[in-house]
Amino acid sequence: MASRVTMIAHLFGAMATILMLVWLLHYRGGIDLDSDSNSDRIFNVHPFLMFFGFIFIAGEAIMGYRTVAAERKVQKLFHMVMHLIAITLGIIGIYAVFKYHDEIGLSDMYSLHSWIGLGTFCLFGLQWLFGFFSFWLPKSSLATRETMKPWHIFGGRALLYMAICSALTGLMEKATIMGLKRGNESRLINFTGLFILLFGLAVDLSLSLAY
Amino acid sequence: MASRVTMIAHLFGAMATILMLVWLLHYRGGIDLDSDSNSDRIFNVHPFLMFFGFIFIAGEAIMGYRTVAAERKVQKLFHMVMHLIAITLGIIGIYAVFKYHDEIGLSDMYSLHSWIGLGTFCLFGLQWLFGFFSFWLPKSSLATRETMKPWHIFGGRALLYMAICSALTGLMEKATIMGLKRGNESRLINFTGLFILLFGLAVDLSLSLAY
Repeated sequence: MASRVTMIAHLFGAMATILMLVWLLHYRGGIDLDSDSNSDRIFNVHPFLMFFGFIFIAGEAIMGYRTVAAERKVQKLFHMVMHLIAITLGIIGIYAVFKYHDEIGLSDMYSLHSWIGLGTFCLFGLQWLFGFFSFWLPKSSLATRETMKPWHIFGGRALLYMAICSALTGLMEKATIMGLKRGNESRLINFTGLFILLFGLAVDLSLSLAY
Repeated sequence: MASRVTMIAHLFGAMATILMLVWLLHYRGGIDLDSDSNSDRIFNVHPFLMFFGFIFIAGEAIMGYRTVAAERKVQKLFHMVMHLIAITLGIIGIYAVFKYHDEIGLSDMYSLHSWIGLGTFCLFGLQWLFGFFSFWLPKSSLATRETMKPWHIFGGRALLYMAICSALTGLMEKATIMGLKRGNESRLINFTGLFILLFGLAVDLSLSLAY
């Protein structure tokens, strides 16, 4: 059951990635962090890396802790390193939107999306550090680790949903700024958001089935 | 521990309600479903009832299943009736936004917020019916109920987070349509959203500690 749910989560994540790429490449002019001619292409790095780089890879890291076919130590390593990759790509994604704001003279950090997004990202970094020192470095006693484990799992799930909230408020903000009403691009963005939500729900379900 | 978390959840929910009322009454002209002179007052019924009427009361219903100081049957009755109240107030809240759209000639159901919001609400209604026939009417066997219980809990938590996503995308859409940048009203909306998110996280935590 858990492995079937994991498979469904992969599919939802892949669907969200494909729809987002169609949106950014076909409707929004492409993705390029160093674009000189089109600042929209700098912005486009942000949604792509925040979903595919950060949320999708972190979700795979969460599921991989149980589902990677390897010994315990390798599963833990996968879990830790994938989260580190997600954080790195997330930092580039956040840099992209600040660079875009800077280029076109927009102010930063005034929207609900920016507050929840950056808040989630910082707490995610703390959760990683907390996990690294508690579960990877072999200093904590087994009893301490057993006490901290449910908090690590709850924190991870809470951060997953917070990241989903950040993504959906971000898509909502962008679609509203662009003044989209009924139409193909609007529907494409909505389906991207729906698949991001379904990815989060499937990752949570696979987590719930594992513990 | 669980009772302390429940107390914190009440506080976050109350804070979100107060901040939202300050926003709607002080900045947005008040709340009135039958307003003839000011259609904004019709709209304002929507965010108020969707958070206070639907999400807050449903959250209290979730927590009350464990924390209401009464016998099991009364806790179940509280859980069921409070959810029914939440659904009723939610229907009025959804009616309000359709009425507002109708009055000022806006089209319906094109935004990500509307898709996720109405989707969540319909699934919530199904979850209530499923719960009523499985756990209230005494026809299912104990074994069937035990099998369905983890799905009822997972479904409830998933719907809670989906409702939080709906609320935050709604606030994000409204703030962006109003063209708010840095300022008092923008900060007020963001803090309302943050407390709605914190309420959801606290309800989930109290649920995680109870099971």
